[in-house]
Amino acid sequence: MTKFISVNDRQYKIPDRPTVIVCIDGCEQEYINLAVQAGVAPFFKSLLERGTVLTGYSVIPSFTNPNNLSIVTGAPPSVHGICGNFFFDAETQAEVLMNDAKFLRAPTILAEVAKVGKKVAVVTAKDKLSALLGHNLSGICFSAEKADQVSLEKNGIADVLVKVGKPVPSVYSAELSEFIFAAGIMLLENERPDLMYLSTTDYVQHKNAPGTQAANEFYAILDRYLSALDRMGAVIGITADHGMNAKTDSLGRNNILFLQDILDKAPEMQGCRVVLPITDPYVAHHGALGSFATVYASNPTATKEFIATLPGIDLVLDRQDAARRFELPEDRIGDLVVLSDRLFVIGTSVSRHDLSGLTVPLRSHGGLSEQAVPLLFNRKLASVPNRKLRNFDVFDLALNGVG
Amino acid sequence: MTKFISVNDRQYKIPDRPTVIVCIDGCEQEYINLAVQAGVAPFFKSLLERGTVLTGYSVIPSFTNPNNLSIVTGAPPSVHGICGNFFFDAETQAEVLMNDAKFLRAPTILAEVAKVGKKVAVVTAKDKLSALLGHNLSGICFSAEKADQVSLEKNGIADVLVKVGKPVPSVYSAELSEFIFAAGIMLLENERPDLMYLSTTDYVQHKNAPGTQAANEFYAILDRYLSALDRMGAVIGITADHGMNAKTDSLGRNNILFLQDILDKAPEMQGCRVVLPITDPYVAHHGALGSFATVYASNPTATKEFIATLPGIDLVLDRQDAARRFELPEDRIGDLVVLSDRLFVIGTSVSRHDLSGLTVPLRSHGGLSEQAVPLLFNRKLASVPNRKLRNFDVFDLALNGVG
Repeated sequence: MTKFISVNDRQYKIPDRPTVIVCIDGCEQEYINLAVQAGVAPFFKSLLERGTVLTGYSVIPSFTNPNNLSIVTGAPPSVHGICGNFFFDAETQAEVLMNDAKFLRAPTILAEVAKVGKKVAVVTAKDKLSALLGHNLSGICFSAEKADQVSLEKNGIADVLVKVGKPVPSVYSAELSEFIFAAGIMLLENERPDLMYLSTTDYVQHKNAPGTQAANEFYAILDRYLSALDRMGAVIGITADHGMNAKTDSLGRNNILFLQDILDKAPEMQGCRVVLPITDPYVAHHGALGSFATVYASNPTATKEFIATLPGIDLVLDRQDAARRFELPEDRIGDLVVLSDRLFVIGTSVSRHDLSGLTVPLRSHGGLSEQAVPLLFNRKLASVPNRKLRNFDVFDLALNGVG
Repeated sequence: MTKFISVNDRQYKIPDRPTVIVCIDGCEQEYINLAVQAGVAPFFKSLLERGTVLTGYSVIPSFTNPNNLSIVTGAPPSVHGICGNFFFDAETQAEVLMNDAKFLRAPTILAEVAKVGKKVAVVTAKDKLSALLGHNLSGICFSAEKADQVSLEKNGIADVLVKVGKPVPSVYSAELSEFIFAAGIMLLENERPDLMYLSTTDYVQHKNAPGTQAANEFYAILDRYLSALDRMGAVIGITADHGMNAKTDSLGRNNILFLQDILDKAPEMQGCRVVLPITDPYVAHHGALGSFATVYASNPTATKEFIATLPGIDLVLDRQDAARRFELPEDRIGDLVVLSDRLFVIGTSVSRHDLSGLTVPLRSHGGLSEQAVPLLFNRKLASVPNRKLRNFDVFDLALNGVG
């Protein structure tokens, strides 16, 4: 008899065969399309015939943490609470890092599946994400970044480096993502988890445009690992946390709107605080520059009108409108939510961004232009809902949609 | 003494040295950025130091003819009248091709500069455009497509093939654009025009993404020709008619909204007519599919609401709003103007599009996502206006801005 569990008001079939959900960080759809056209991605290409090819839409802000949490909870940030890496606490007047699991307001599908006795494994690129994804999870959970520091007690597995047969990769490398897949293969062979979640990093995508040699080489590697997981009999669902776009002009000069500086220089806009929820301890590849900001303002209406006229701005919404339209938690966004155009990013002040890591013209994400992402399965789905699909439908479709 | 002429209410300095304006059809800014990064575009790269690098915004619809006409008139379509390749004539109930110069409502800068005794030359890729660009022009004007059919009487020059030293290229080829530059070099050497306009075709860009080998090879060729024009002492201004984006999903399947079919199937939407102003006699590279349509409807308000809810739609405006926002001639657009999202195009009916020429996943243009284009000069500009620049400011900046 098929058994179901309920998580955040959605029903999921308890997996009766290994199911692997993959989040390819920063996977603008063109990366796959051009790798397939270049002939280096035969597994991806095969999905057209033997699998299911859909497009999903990410959560806004189109950042890593909000979307990973939406994917593993099957719910928007208004439910799980994680709408960025930072929010501003008005009481303490401080920016608060949201990497701790205490900020998570909803259970994950991963933890709930483990609770009914199924074996669950999670491998992430960066350690910042594993605490959130592994919240309340009885199972295996570790990051490639700290794969040398795992223990049976803390991570549900020991000696990962020996078992994977690879050294700990640099946190800024393609190898960080490759390690995750190598670990996934090892886990599927040794541990046979019923449900596994693999989440990569977008270092390669921040540095390389779709169709370029480095990008195609990276997708060729992913393709080989996904093909191996497929041959091992896993049901595979693939999506992304967000897309990726150039944020430059024709000569590769970064299009940055330093919003805090602009507001500070306007006499009538004093006392505004710009918070960039993309900011985190790992910024070398994007300089903490994305296409989304929230603003705390003493006069939100006037500030909204002022910002809306700035070049490079796509949309400014007040707190209520933003919370409703993007399903965000009202208490963790500013008075205003600001999104920039496809080719622009928002910064705070020139002095607060270290751009020394930007060795190539900026590519980033955060806005509406990075919302469309792949939603792929290595099986034909029995039925697909007739609505705009989200990346956080991936567990639903993989667990419930495969006959 | 510096002399000026007035064209469409703007003042232009009469050129006292050869000035060449180049429109690179479909030049999404990433093509140049990634060619420079690949090290194959040293002339473009040099503009950062010795020239001026700006971004301009195209006319909407981001199609070839409206933008080429805006560039050579220095004015929006509301002034020059050309807002696409087709409009629907309500009186005759027929779609009317706007390739004839009789539809042009404004003089060109080219013709006016020629009238004061300066030598002017125009070379286009496709013949369809040369009649419009050469309207009332006493000078040289021909297309690469019909370079074998030129005459002194009709085109102001004879024996072009012999003078250029190349055969007539295929209308669907990179060579069509290369021929234009080779002709430009020949003209600058032999005829020394005071003002020259070179306008290429976007065949390469429709078929190849930025940064791919074929794209980089094409831009390397452009770079060499532009460098040669530069060494010959010309003042050069470079822009584009529109950008270019993928219009597909992650497996390269075209995202087409067949709007006429959708409207025909809705009982309450009977009698609507969808017109695609991108349609022209040359459709093999895009299948007449772009991100812009106009709709003639018996009930515009209800139709607007219906279309706005369709997936892939970016914006629906009624005639007055569209004419105001995009500076379009009200009598040549439908009751509604419809723009699709970055990754979508609008078709009419499945049966009316021949997609057999789409040998690779669709890339196209027409919407807001293809509005940002390069605006480059091989000289430092004395001053740049502090406003959102348009691609049709290129003559102004090249003629007036170079000290």
